[in-house]
Amino acid sequence: MPDVGVWLIGARGSVATTAVAGCAAVTAGLRPPAGLVTEKPEFADAGLPPLTSLVFGGHDISDTPLVKRAEQLAAEGVLPVGLAAAVESELAAADREIRAGWVRGSGVAGGVRAEPGGAGTVHAGAEPGTGDAYETPRPSAPGDADAGPKDPSALLERDEQHVAALAADIQDFVRRRGLARAVVVNVASTEAASDGAALPPSSLYAAAALRAGCPYVNFTPSTGLHHPALAGLAEASGLPYAGRDGKTGQTLLRSVLGPMFNRRALEVRSWSGVNLLGGGDGAALADPGAAAAKNAGKERVLADTLGTVPEGRVHIDDVPALGDWKTAWDHIAFDGFLGTRMTLQTTWQGCDSALAAPLILDLARLLLRAHERGLSGPLPALAFFFKDPVGEAPAGLEEQWAELAGFARELGPTDAVAERGPGTGGEEA
Amino acid sequence: MPDVGVWLIGARGSVATTAVAGCAAVTAGLRPPAGLVTEKPEFADAGLPPLTSLVFGGHDISDTPLVKRAEQLAAEGVLPVGLAAAVESELAAADREIRAGWVRGSGVAGGVRAEPGGAGTVHAGAEPGTGDAYETPRPSAPGDADAGPKDPSALLERDEQHVAALAADIQDFVRRRGLARAVVVNVASTEAASDGAALPPSSLYAAAALRAGCPYVNFTPSTGLHHPALAGLAEASGLPYAGRDGKTGQTLLRSVLGPMFNRRALEVRSWSGVNLLGGGDGAALADPGAAAAKNAGKERVLADTLGTVPEGRVHIDDVPALGDWKTAWDHIAFDGFLGTRMTLQTTWQGCDSALAAPLILDLARLLLRAHERGLSGPLPALAFFFKDPVGEAPAGLEEQWAELAGFARELGPTDAVAERGPGTGGEEA
Amino acid sequence: MPDVGVWLIGARGSVATTAVAGCAAVTAGLRPPAGLVTEKPEFADAGLPPLTSLVFGGHDISDTPLVKRAEQLAAEGVLPVGLAAAVESELAAADREIRAGWVRGSGVAGGVRAEPGGAGTVHAGAEPGTGDAYETPRPSAPGDADAGPKDPSALLERDEQHVAALAADIQDFVRRRGLARAVVVNVASTEAASDGAALPPSSLYAAAALRAGCPYVNFTPSTGLHHPALAGLAEASGLPYAGRDGKTGQTLLRSVLGPMFNRRALEVRSWSGVNLLGGGDGAALADPGAAAAKNAGKERVLADTLGTVPEGRVHIDDVPALGDWKTAWDHIAFDGFLGTRMTLQTTWQGCDSALAAPLILDLARLLLRAHERGLSGPLPALAFFFKDPVGEAPAGLEEQWAELAGFARELGPTDAVAERGPGTGGEEA
Amino acid sequence: MPDVGVWLIGARGSVATTAVAGCAAVTAGLRPPAGLVTEKPEFADAGLPPLTSLVFGGHDISDTPLVKRAEQLAAEGVLPVGLAAAVESELAAADREIRAGWVRGSGVAGGVRAEPGGAGTVHAGAEPGTGDAYETPRPSAPGDADAGPKDPSALLERDEQHVAALAADIQDFVRRRGLARAVVVNVASTEAASDGAALPPSSLYAAAALRAGCPYVNFTPSTGLHHPALAGLAEASGLPYAGRDGKTGQTLLRSVLGPMFNRRALEVRSWSGVNLLGGGDGAALADPGAAAAKNAGKERVLADTLGTVPEGRVHIDDVPALGDWKTAWDHIAFDGFLGTRMTLQTTWQGCDSALAAPLILDLARLLLRAHERGLSGPLPALAFFFKDPVGEAPAGLEEQWAELAGFARELGPTDAVAERGPGTGGEEA
Repeated sequence: MPDVGVWLIGARGSVATTAVAGCAAVTAGLRPPAGLVTEKPEFADAGLPPLTSLVFGGHDISDTPLVKRAEQLAAEGVLPVGLAAAVESELAAADREIRAGWVRGSGVAGGVRAEPGGAGTVHAGAEPGTGDAYETPRPSAPGDADAGPKDPSALLERDEQHVAALAADIQDFVRRRGLARAVVVNVASTEAASDGAALPPSSLYAAAALRAGCPYVNFTPSTGLHHPALAGLAEASGLPYAGRDGKTGQTLLRSVLGPMFNRRALEVRSWSGVNLLGGGDGAALADPGAAAAKNAGKERVLADTLGTVPEGRVHIDDVPALGDWKTAWDHIAFDGFLGTRMTLQTTWQGCDSALAAPLILDLARLLLRAHERGLSGPLPALAFFFKDPVGEAPAGLEEQWAELAGFARELGPTDAVAERGPGTGGEEA
Repeated sequence: MPDVGVWLIGARGSVATTAVAGCAAVTAGLRPPAGLVTEKPEFADAGLPPLTSLVFGGHDISDTPLVKRAEQLAAEGVLPVGLAAAVESELAAADREIRAGWVRGSGVAGGVRAEPGGAGTVHAGAEPGTGDAYETPRPSAPGDADAGPKDPSALLERDEQHVAALAADIQDFVRRRGLARAVVVNVASTEAASDGAALPPSSLYAAAALRAGCPYVNFTPSTGLHHPALAGLAEASGLPYAGRDGKTGQTLLRSVLGPMFNRRALEVRSWSGVNLLGGGDGAALADPGAAAAKNAGKERVLADTLGTVPEGRVHIDDVPALGDWKTAWDHIAFDGFLGTRMTLQTTWQGCDSALAAPLILDLARLLLRAHERGLSGPLPALAFFFKDPVGEAPAGLEEQWAELAGFARELGPTDAVAERGPGTGGEEA
Repeated sequence: MPDVGVWLIGARGSVATTAVAGCAAVTAGLRPPAGLVTEKPEFADAGLPPLTSLVFGGHDISDTPLVKRAEQLAAEGVLPVGLAAAVESELAAADREIRAGWVRGSGVAGGVRAEPGGAGTVHAGAEPGTGDAYETPRPSAPGDADAGPKDPSALLERDEQHVAALAADIQDFVRRRGLARAVVVNVASTEAASDGAALPPSSLYAAAALRAGCPYVNFTPSTGLHHPALAGLAEASGLPYAGRDGKTGQTLLRSVLGPMFNRRALEVRSWSGVNLLGGGDGAALADPGAAAAKNAGKERVLADTLGTVPEGRVHIDDVPALGDWKTAWDHIAFDGFLGTRMTLQTTWQGCDSALAAPLILDLARLLLRAHERGLSGPLPALAFFFKDPVGEAPAGLEEQWAELAGFARELGPTDAVAERGPGTGGEEA
Repeated sequence: MPDVGVWLIGARGSVATTAVAGCAAVTAGLRPPAGLVTEKPEFADAGLPPLTSLVFGGHDISDTPLVKRAEQLAAEGVLPVGLAAAVESELAAADREIRAGWVRGSGVAGGVRAEPGGAGTVHAGAEPGTGDAYETPRPSAPGDADAGPKDPSALLERDEQHVAALAADIQDFVRRRGLARAVVVNVASTEAASDGAALPPSSLYAAAALRAGCPYVNFTPSTGLHHPALAGLAEASGLPYAGRDGKTGQTLLRSVLGPMFNRRALEVRSWSGVNLLGGGDGAALADPGAAAAKNAGKERVLADTLGTVPEGRVHIDDVPALGDWKTAWDHIAFDGFLGTRMTLQTTWQGCDSALAAPLILDLARLLLRAHERGLSGPLPALAFFFKDPVGEAPAGLEEQWAELAGFARELGPTDAVAERGPGTGGEEA
């Protein structure tokens, strides 16, 4: 099997570090493949690249070495004690393939790093939990606002040189490492809401992926490919892509509880929730704009599975004391027969990185294989992994699972992809 | 549409009272059909008997009038204030069709009532929450034990006259009320574990249903048709039947959460639960034997959906202060990627009667229609409703829903029942 | 024993209705005195007016009769079924003593009612759960803002005629009913944050209480006597008063959990909470200003009992589906020995009116007795009842209880009030 | 300051290991003294021996070195990563002072070790989480039962040689290390219920403590000094002692929640609980007899603080997957005014060793100082630390705290111990 690449936007974050360390630990037989969906029997014949063939690289604006990040994660209980040492060489190998991320306004782009410690290259108070491949945009200077183009595609043009530099980093990685192909996965901190005057950073990286000829996955609620300026590029690229916003906790639960109430004709009156989370994600989502993007995904799940929008809100609180551990409480008030009021409460206590990291490996493998099979466009059959999936997809987890399993069969060597029925994901190139 | 009968074993219990009162309230337009699965669009063309065609009767050893029971339920918050008065005539009509239940050792059987208040006819401490169609068996007298037959079918023979008397009550109901057919539904308190020397009461009623030519539903964890002495009778009857143990709370949740963990390859290490419930069910299940039957159903769901049996137990506590309200807490410890420990907790606070009653109406309608279509034998396509379903059926709720929806299509007037594929429930007569 | 008066601001709200109905039910022996602190043995010799001597009246801008309100509360499960009918005459008697509340800008003040249903007299969407003795202030007209006095006492002068009219209502009540004295208790919906250009309505009522020579209790987070314009009046009045913001749920819990962590030297890192509530209070507190007042009380409890301010926020969500039932979830992350992270979660599900109403009776009795004994000024010994108590008081519930029990001893006929030591509440007139 | 000794029964268990490692970490300034009650200001003048003066030793039947145990605890998240290495020399020093525990029937007693790995010396399936200073008693051999003395003091006589050998270990420790005094603290796994034919092992160790002239603390629910055979010895010894069963989680919570309900006159109808715990304690308490002892303490707290015994049970489940982490869920149904039903639920997720270990240090310091001041007999003023305290003591935590703070003042150098008032703990020698 030829080697294939996984290029991570936010490559020094906790999700990326956990994915790289975990891939090494599982392939070395140090740990069972818990949490890896693509290791389930349904995927055995899908022709996915083996875990041993994955080569990691990526962009980040932090320069903390991956080995050190892994040690920090072990101290927080995210990685098992001793794991960082056991997979040190794999972490170091990935570390060597990480290139400087892009910082708006610094004149710096991929491959050319600002002075270490220089102003603007590293977040002053960057949380160690999450990777940062771009700086939070600041209010534009007056001149910028005047220059703000109305035409979306003009936005892309304006940043084309940055996109090209980032794409060059990726292509260089593929070439030097002799990879058959590579997939770009965004696992950076959620970006702040944009003011529209410039492309958000996540969209620049997404454009760079396409320019480099790579399939793209957006595991965050950031804009990524969901920007009108990129629509033409995405369509013309003939590449498959998936997203948006990985479903790792509260929304995962909602995607099975919503259908339960629906099937039993129990009328949900209110669905309230609160998420407590530290780490970089907590800080990013304390920004109301960023939280709004995330909440939209959560509420879409309820509306789609219940058929109505119940009362209630979702709060996202930044609680640094919790670190990478997330606690989500949901309170659901529903009516049974004759209007009798009842409630369900759920408390989910999970480690975000440990939940997300295996899905990154799953998605990378699936996209790499989809690319190999010549699929292109949005892959709604991967809705199983996302809060806010691309394309038309069911919202209930079991229906999503059925579509995913069907997609796995289609990817396999025996089924001709051409025979796939409609609605199960992807268009052919 | 001709009228059809619903004969309830435990007809004065809270579930039965809620079903009768609720059917009247919904058909009168006083309340929306919340909780009624068969009012969902998927069942619109299944040819089910309309709610207005249902005529109620049943057996019970209590003689509290249904109107009074409904008022008690309103005081406990189970029924809306004022509902009992609004449907008083329907409750009174059902009340007139309730016959005395059977009490082992009293020489009394259906249709012949012991003296009101006489010893043995009413449980000394019977909880008002749940119907009681039979007494809890007491330790057999010495002579009984000696006479205990080894041959299961001999057990049935020994009680054949009681069965015949109970069946006569049902047949009389059908004849007098001019019903096209009737279904027998067991909603009595869970019976104590039997010593094997005699048929448990629930099995006598099940036998009576078959003798009377009626399809049968066992909504409780009691033995019912699950007794070797009844196997031949069930097969020879050509009647459809369903059961066992309605899925109304903790197990309903487990049937969607189990698949969620499985699909995501999250390894469940322990699943612990506690049920706090008052009412008659709490008292009955304080009996370890009865609880064991109920727990077997709960654990089967986990084993089937997870593929393994996690650590942990389920406790059922009788807490009379809670009345008909049930609180179930579940604690699930699971491992994510690299063995990271995470937990999910759920707290379900439901009113048992309000959850069960609409399902009684659903099951009655489905069995009546299945009988009309000539189906016979166990109906695994109704596994959606049960903890411990008959026949071969999936354990995940969504898969059960898919089977139920398919079954509804087959029941409909346009599909020929003969064309049904295998595995979707029932054999034809 | 002579009769004494309890004048309720928000007299048609759910708290007031429950207090009036409940006082009647308890004195008639229909219900035990659960929830009434002053019925505990510690208060037996405090010389409190008996429940049978309490005569109710008050202000409200709603005109829904109390009997109808009580029936609504029974339908929501707040009052027992049948109670409204059992105490109908007492409710009607209180109803006759309710006078029209004050509406800024309508030219209407106590005793002179606007046309029933006329514009401005009744909230369009007023929630039935909570009494409304005043309208939510709207943005002032331009002229108002110009006229806004900087001198606090000028604010009071400007509204003096309204105050006088409201006070006349109270004095008329005392005179007509031959009462020895009366206490004014604010149980109206939390008012919106004020813009400072005019006295908030709650302060007008508080001024009216003092003008009428009545002790005053503010059971809400509204401003009431906490306004600089009233400082001189309060001091000159020689009347005792207490408040602010009754402690009925989440904060009650915090006042015992905070000390627990403190005593055990467990370091609380974060304390996050969410309150879901419907009824009028939910709607009022959806206003961020009103919520801020309430949250200040909650956070003061933590700061005072823990000695530090932990991370975390409190959210108050309006969830109309919950009606008068409130669910509060708290998540506390704390460090044990060597920094080991642990958590406590609490879920409190209470009925606000049922929690508040008995405390209203308790406070009324205590203030009436304090007045009789000639006490004056803030009574910090009543901190037991409040989130944000007046004067210097401990924040832990047990310490507050000790002060309250000491205060009860001082009120008693055998102890000379003059011998009270400092710090246990009140100054003598 | 002279050195003083802390002799731990179960010295290789997780609580003991955490106490030894933690004491070293705090005195070295590696960690703040979170969880150490005696580091609070109230104890500053009590004359307690400083943490730096504590020298550790003890009995255990395991021979896993403390350093290795500390590493295991770090892998489970009980100790911080890296701590074991940082305090390795202190752990090794304590390790050298651990002597072989006593095993009934092996002819082995303190100081004389059975062959390593030999039959009977180590539990086959001993959980690593908790120390084991004795084997679980097995059914006595026939000869034993015949010889079973009816006279309690005869029981002690029969085992006197074992007691003497264990006491010699302690005295040797004091002498060799030049200690001013030593305290014996039982932190071994809860012992199985005894059949009465012989002294339970915990009582042998307690007798040895007294024989060695040491004050004694029983932090477990095991019998210890609570045995009639030891009554005379305890009284004659003139030594102070404290116990029983450390209050570290669910009961700690109950000791503040019980008073809260009581003070507010809220009537608790039911209080149900479940404890999920792994480690050695989970396995030990799966034994119904051992659980009964623990539950008695839990229920005593409720009865004493509420004044009544509510409905409901406590379950203790062994869930090995949880390791040293304990989850306790409580469900409390209470009535407010007019009987309105409300509930409180709590979920406590704690690490048993991290909760217990600092209290071991606290108790050791307090008993050492009490001994120095010549106090003797039971010390009810230490009820703050226990589920089932010795002597007459209040059950509410705040009242216990007040007594503890008073006791600290009495221990101090300025107060004459002779002037202590009654009821605050201890009798003088």
